[in-house]
Amino acid sequence: MSLSPRLEALIDALQCLPGVGRKSAQRMAFQLLERDRSGAGALARQLDDALANIGRCERCQTFAEDALCPVCADDRRDGSLMCVVESPADLAAIEQSGDYRGYYFVLLGHLSPIDGIGPEDIGVDQLLAQIHERGVTELIMATNATVEGDATAHYIADRVDPETVTITRPAQGLPVGGELGGVDGGTLSHALRGRRPFAG
Amino acid sequence: MSLSPRLEALIDALQCLPGVGRKSAQRMAFQLLERDRSGAGALARQLDDALANIGRCERCQTFAEDALCPVCADDRRDGSLMCVVESPADLAAIEQSGDYRGYYFVLLGHLSPIDGIGPEDIGVDQLLAQIHERGVTELIMATNATVEGDATAHYIADRVDPETVTITRPAQGLPVGGELGGVDGGTLSHALRGRRPFAG
Repeated sequence: MSLSPRLEALIDALQCLPGVGRKSAQRMAFQLLERDRSGAGALARQLDDALANIGRCERCQTFAEDALCPVCADDRRDGSLMCVVESPADLAAIEQSGDYRGYYFVLLGHLSPIDGIGPEDIGVDQLLAQIHERGVTELIMATNATVEGDATAHYIADRVDPETVTITRPAQGLPVGGELGGVDGGTLSHALRGRRPFAG
Repeated sequence: MSLSPRLEALIDALQCLPGVGRKSAQRMAFQLLERDRSGAGALARQLDDALANIGRCERCQTFAEDALCPVCADDRRDGSLMCVVESPADLAAIEQSGDYRGYYFVLLGHLSPIDGIGPEDIGVDQLLAQIHERGVTELIMATNATVEGDATAHYIADRVDPETVTITRPAQGLPVGGELGGVDGGTLSHALRGRRPFAG
């Protein structure tokens, strides 16, 4: 014998969480059963509630409880601007910065042929339809600055009509408040190549 | 706006897991909703099932689905031996080593005055009653080799009648298969002080 079957089943189930292996799952199961049964009950309820009620926005694909997410439902935004991001977390980060007033399209991932994720899985056709429908004139490619994010941005740029839509990418360079010595070489060379006149 | 209220509630609930902060919880919630809804559903079911059905063994306090855990229910074990451990994981580890044939007592923690955990919270009275009831003659203190584990072992040792019960502690020394250079100083000095004649 080692652990009871239900405990084993719980430990297995906890391993569906990203970054959680057998050891962490065991620690989590013990902690919940020993010290936080009310927290575990709340987690089970919130999981069920989220699964039953959180779907995707019909327009931008982000997580939403209604047919449209709050951003798409807000018709005071600038319909000529659309920002393409990989995940709802990226959307939330841009919203928190407070500057952007256009709409979004959330790919929920990036192209990854090795994992079998093609254009139809990230909703490229739906993005193109949205660009047409909303009359977008500038598409901001805010996919991650990774190989996959870049490849996804290039693929989408190739499918967009360059006559009607300008495609841009957020500037790459030094982070605000960052120390030069702590910045990696790739970022530093981007920052130097993209240097600008000193505004004084 | 940033995230939907139900998504926020799920992210909050995930933070009951040990070692999971806001960022990890957000990543977990997105991952479950995007890619593993069946896993999330299974996790919710297993949590509910575990909370409803996993209690504690009446004798040794480990997690059990019935009144007695499989070890305590096995009457072919050696009743004169009892091993005191801090958690069901420690019990499982000793069981997997395969050598030990006595019973256990699981403290489900250690004494920690700073967190308000006293002898009654880890079941010391129940342990003393079990020692008496089962006729234990050797008590193996397999609490963790930490300050708290040592203090807990000393406290229990003081409460046990030395006339009838011998108290032992697992040997401390070099791990089997370990390289000398990778062993910390404390372990190394324990190993040297506890040196034995070479058996050849």
